Amino acid sequence: MANDLSLNKEQILDAAEQALKRYGPDKTSVVDVARALQVSHGTLYRHFASKAALREAVTERWLRRSIAEPLAQATGLPQGGSAAERLRLWLDTLIAAKRAHAAEDPELFAMYAAVTMEAAEMIDAHIDGLILQMASIIEDGITAGELRPGRPETIARAIFIATSRFHHPAHAREWNAERTDRDYDSVWELILAGLALPTA
Amino acid sequence: MANDLSLNKEQILDAAEQALKRYGPDKTSVVDVARALQVSHGTLYRHFASKAALREAVTERWLRRSIAEPLAQATGLPQGGSAAERLRLWLDTLIAAKRAHAAEDPELFAMYAAVTMEAAEMIDAHIDGLILQMASIIEDGITAGELRPGRPETIARAIFIATSRFHHPAHAREWNAERTDRDYDSVWELILAGLALPTA
Repeated sequence: MANDLSLNKEQILDAAEQALKRYGPDKTSVVDVARALQVSHGTLYRHFASKAALREAVTERWLRRSIAEPLAQATGLPQGGSAAERLRLWLDTLIAAKRAHAAEDPELFAMYAAVTMEAAEMIDAHIDGLILQMASIIEDGITAGELRPGRPETIARAIFIATSRFHHPAHAREWNAERTDRDYDSVWELILAGLALPTA
Repeated sequence: MANDLSLNKEQILDAAEQALKRYGPDKTSVVDVARALQVSHGTLYRHFASKAALREAVTERWLRRSIAEPLAQATGLPQGGSAAERLRLWLDTLIAAKRAHAAEDPELFAMYAAVTMEAAEMIDAHIDGLILQMASIIEDGITAGELRPGRPETIARAIFIATSRFHHPAHAREWNAERTDRDYDSVWELILAGLALPTA
């Protein structure tokens, strides 16, 4: 279809994602993707030097489109509501997106879990972006006198890590356990007690 | 060495652990362990019906000896110190034991990580025991008026889950990251703020 000149990164990523879904991450090669796009594999190698680079790029786009961008909207929108409510909604949205992906797209989710362990830099950048989103909510809460004073980014990072059990892909197999929702409520209650200004 | 009659479970587990260390978890079979003990593999199969059962039993013993029992001592001993100090010491001890095992015995640690995902019942029982230990410290702290009132077991479970990043084997590859210790301090600070009674 596309000739070498008109080929852009999004088209390659679309084709790569399709191939990964169809053949599975282990069996998909850069050559398969080149074939699907009807370009030489040399052309494709100029964009992605290896299968690992291709998997990382597909994961990076998925994290941006399905996690970071929807969450950024969730962060901005409901300007009503307390900071605690906004934070809980933010975490709920993150956790729901991860669970949906794990359930609906198990092969790509397994790839994302593997990339999470391998592509440390890309994942760190993604997480830093998420933490800034939470930090802005926390900052609002501190300014409004609702939350305890502190460094918003440090607090946001602590919350992100303390809830890993519910959104880190290494724990996906535990998400279906019956008590997961209760556990999430208990952890949230503990976090909230640490965040809120004593109201006495 | 041992004849079929005198063979007890501890001897089998010793031999299994040795074989697992020597040949690696993937290559060790029940037959290898029988050979090391100079018994028929029929004898061994009466104790462990499968390789999975053998791996689970070795992991179970390791968790009891290296984690649960030392921690039970740490829970009982330093009757001086605040509940917060005792809890932090308990968590430090848990985390140090996991990290030492991951560094010193990577093959057995990888087996433990796999068993954690497969042997849900055994792992749940192990974790329930650990949570009871923490709950007893929390109960002391509530009784002493140091910690916020609440259900000690629920709070203990929330703390255990909120610190998963630092002791759950699925995160072992992240433990060497430079900021892990700082992250642990931040999470602990958040937890502690949620536990402590306001002192104003």
